[in-house]
Amino acid sequence: MNNDTIIAMATPAGSGAIAVIRLSGPEAIAQVSQTFRSVSGKSLDAQRTHTVHLGHILDEGRTLDEVLVTVFKNPNSYTGEDVIEISCHGSPYIQQELIQLYLRRGCRMATPGEFTLRAFLNGKLDLSQAEAVADLIASENEASHQIAMQQMRGGFSSEIAKLRQELLNFASLIELELDFSEEDVEFADRTEFTALVDKITTVLKRLIDSFAVGNVIKNGIPIAIVGEPNVGKSTLLNALLNEDRAIVSEIAGTTRDTIEDEISIGGIGFRFIDTAGIRETEDVVESIGIKKTFQKIEESQVVIYLFDGSSSLEQVDAIKLEIEKIKNKYPQKPLIILANKIDQLSVDEQSRLSDKISDCFLISAKTGEGVSELTDSLLDLINTGALRNNETIVTNSRHYDALLKAFEEMQKVKHGLETGLSGDLLAVDIRQALYHFGEITGEITTDDLLGNIFANFCIGK
Amino acid sequence: MNNDTIIAMATPAGSGAIAVIRLSGPEAIAQVSQTFRSVSGKSLDAQRTHTVHLGHILDEGRTLDEVLVTVFKNPNSYTGEDVIEISCHGSPYIQQELIQLYLRRGCRMATPGEFTLRAFLNGKLDLSQAEAVADLIASENEASHQIAMQQMRGGFSSEIAKLRQELLNFASLIELELDFSEEDVEFADRTEFTALVDKITTVLKRLIDSFAVGNVIKNGIPIAIVGEPNVGKSTLLNALLNEDRAIVSEIAGTTRDTIEDEISIGGIGFRFIDTAGIRETEDVVESIGIKKTFQKIEESQVVIYLFDGSSSLEQVDAIKLEIEKIKNKYPQKPLIILANKIDQLSVDEQSRLSDKISDCFLISAKTGEGVSELTDSLLDLINTGALRNNETIVTNSRHYDALLKAFEEMQKVKHGLETGLSGDLLAVDIRQALYHFGEITGEITTDDLLGNIFANFCIGK
Repeated sequence: MNNDTIIAMATPAGSGAIAVIRLSGPEAIAQVSQTFRSVSGKSLDAQRTHTVHLGHILDEGRTLDEVLVTVFKNPNSYTGEDVIEISCHGSPYIQQELIQLYLRRGCRMATPGEFTLRAFLNGKLDLSQAEAVADLIASENEASHQIAMQQMRGGFSSEIAKLRQELLNFASLIELELDFSEEDVEFADRTEFTALVDKITTVLKRLIDSFAVGNVIKNGIPIAIVGEPNVGKSTLLNALLNEDRAIVSEIAGTTRDTIEDEISIGGIGFRFIDTAGIRETEDVVESIGIKKTFQKIEESQVVIYLFDGSSSLEQVDAIKLEIEKIKNKYPQKPLIILANKIDQLSVDEQSRLSDKISDCFLISAKTGEGVSELTDSLLDLINTGALRNNETIVTNSRHYDALLKAFEEMQKVKHGLETGLSGDLLAVDIRQALYHFGEITGEITTDDLLGNIFANFCIGK
Repeated sequence: MNNDTIIAMATPAGSGAIAVIRLSGPEAIAQVSQTFRSVSGKSLDAQRTHTVHLGHILDEGRTLDEVLVTVFKNPNSYTGEDVIEISCHGSPYIQQELIQLYLRRGCRMATPGEFTLRAFLNGKLDLSQAEAVADLIASENEASHQIAMQQMRGGFSSEIAKLRQELLNFASLIELELDFSEEDVEFADRTEFTALVDKITTVLKRLIDSFAVGNVIKNGIPIAIVGEPNVGKSTLLNALLNEDRAIVSEIAGTTRDTIEDEISIGGIGFRFIDTAGIRETEDVVESIGIKKTFQKIEESQVVIYLFDGSSSLEQVDAIKLEIEKIKNKYPQKPLIILANKIDQLSVDEQSRLSDKISDCFLISAKTGEGVSELTDSLLDLINTGALRNNETIVTNSRHYDALLKAFEEMQKVKHGLETGLSGDLLAVDIRQALYHFGEITGEITTDDLLGNIFANFCIGK
């Protein structure tokens, strides 16, 4: 199938110290070898796999760049084919010149995800592992990174493959019975089989349920922060950021001046959505603002109500009314009430505030007081038990669909066993369940499915 | 000096298939080795230079990524120190986690250009070669790329070093004379020395003169295009782009909808500056426009006057007046007059137009007719002879300054020789010229100078 040699940039676009160009296919080594003058004087063809060589790439006598060329020989490469990586100077001009050179010489520009597609087709990884590569590159926090890494290393596939193998063994026995149908034998012990079906159903149920957490981890949790200007929204976000000792922030020296942003708390992504307060008003413009606030609350999974703890008693009464309004309108939605700026309050004032608004956290975003209690309660909202216990978590909606369908078929099998369905009809349902398992790991694929999956990859992966 | 180990991203920021992190210093191999579990089971310490190893980076039991690690052992590396390159998945999160890991373990974030600075300090390249690395990364067209590549490969340095060595030999002889000053001997043959001084002066003059071309090649040539809307400015630029079979355009499928852009013609960068026409008017707003047009003409090195060749005879008369106005105002500035849309004219109409405006190119940006004649005349404006003949061209203003100063000192030496200046005074001027030569290649440096040069590098180079 892959008798052509593909090429693409493997590193992000733009200027940098270096850039990496990757070639894969039967002609990869020969193509680069013919344009490469190594400092050592040796030809690339003669080099061993996993070795690096300094030299110059020449285009009809013109030196394009001084480069490092790494040789990977099949099957010991990412794609399982012969692979060359050219590490050149990070000039967009040079990158384009090099790619043009090999396109002219007969290589083909890789399509998105084509290197990983080849790795899949050559059996270097299964389909769910290939999908995890894209998830890993897109991962933005510890939790999504951990799940993608686990999946890429085959944790998920091996769980599915084990179930599939056990089910396959029984399917074979039942199908064997069909060959001896005249003799009315039972090779497959129905009691054992019922136990297996129950076990598989339980595992499927757990995996299906994990998708709720997996989805949150992959896409982040939307949180609406309801609060007037100057109650300390930005300061609160920066405090949460520091609590997590945010990595990006430390290196790049980021400070947030907008609160419409995603930040990582305890390894989970939270997407904060800024909203105005919902104070009662006759003003038309303001009441449009209130509508917008309610709309944003509806889109979020959690609501934080933030107010200035140093407000006057009358103001606190108004705040209490606002809180009641949110509670009445969204009784099911988790609501966290925060009284900020308590560093400006005496101990007496603080306890009076707590009495007035009973379920309210007292914090000071400025001094950091109470912030760790807030992060704890945010994390309590998500069932991170599975994550901590290193259990398999489903994050991919394609896998979720396949698991749901497999679950349905297993229910049919179970029902068939209970009602004494004949072996040939039972076998049909089992085969159907096996089909859905195979969809996840890629034993069963169609061109359309592969096209959809790899189209979401970047070129060069 | 370099007893610490530095780390930085070597590839551009952002998401990509892979990213490369580079470490350099005495602890580079040990640091990575202690956090790396190779698939082969072998420790990195035991590996040979220029080999690549697949494995996982672990942070206290947590797998951060599956990576390829390349080992370069001193002195066979870019910096001349032990160097590790980690090729990880191109997720910004993973990149930051990996860098954080090694920062915690005692590595230090590299400053801009620090890898190349170490390469310079360890004698892997001289200062002008180090500067060429930055030029190479910034190069955007064939000419600037060619000059940077030539300089990086030592073409410029070796020319300077040769002159310096010859001058140094004479300086030593003259200084030797001083030791025997009682005896009135002349070790340095004054006739030979005069010839050498003449030769050096000639070379210096050529290098100094080349800066005019070098600067144009490095920074591009600003061209003002004067023309009303709809005369075909964008179409012309796209036609020029195709003429050069622009590389970026082919791959990314770029088409230009603005003409304020740099395009490469025959390997030289041209920066096109859009201006309006300068039609006589009573309108205040328009006359502000005319002032702006003149201002842009003043900033440019070449002016293209573009008009619609299918205009009526009265319109052509007005156009002729505009052209005269530009010619009178800027008699020294090269002016190219283009009649566009000649595909809409009969042969008779074309020759009538040529008669009316004598020095005018007839082109059709749409069909491409006449465009290659235009590019030829644009390229004729630059003295590309030196470029074609592969002569050394100075592009760096620091080098230009040093060359000017060296030239001045050589003039003094020459004058001293003519007027029979005593050896000790002659030696002072020669030493001063040698000093300026040394500034270019980096035999003479100060911390300030190095700081200035490498501050302009990107981090990771």
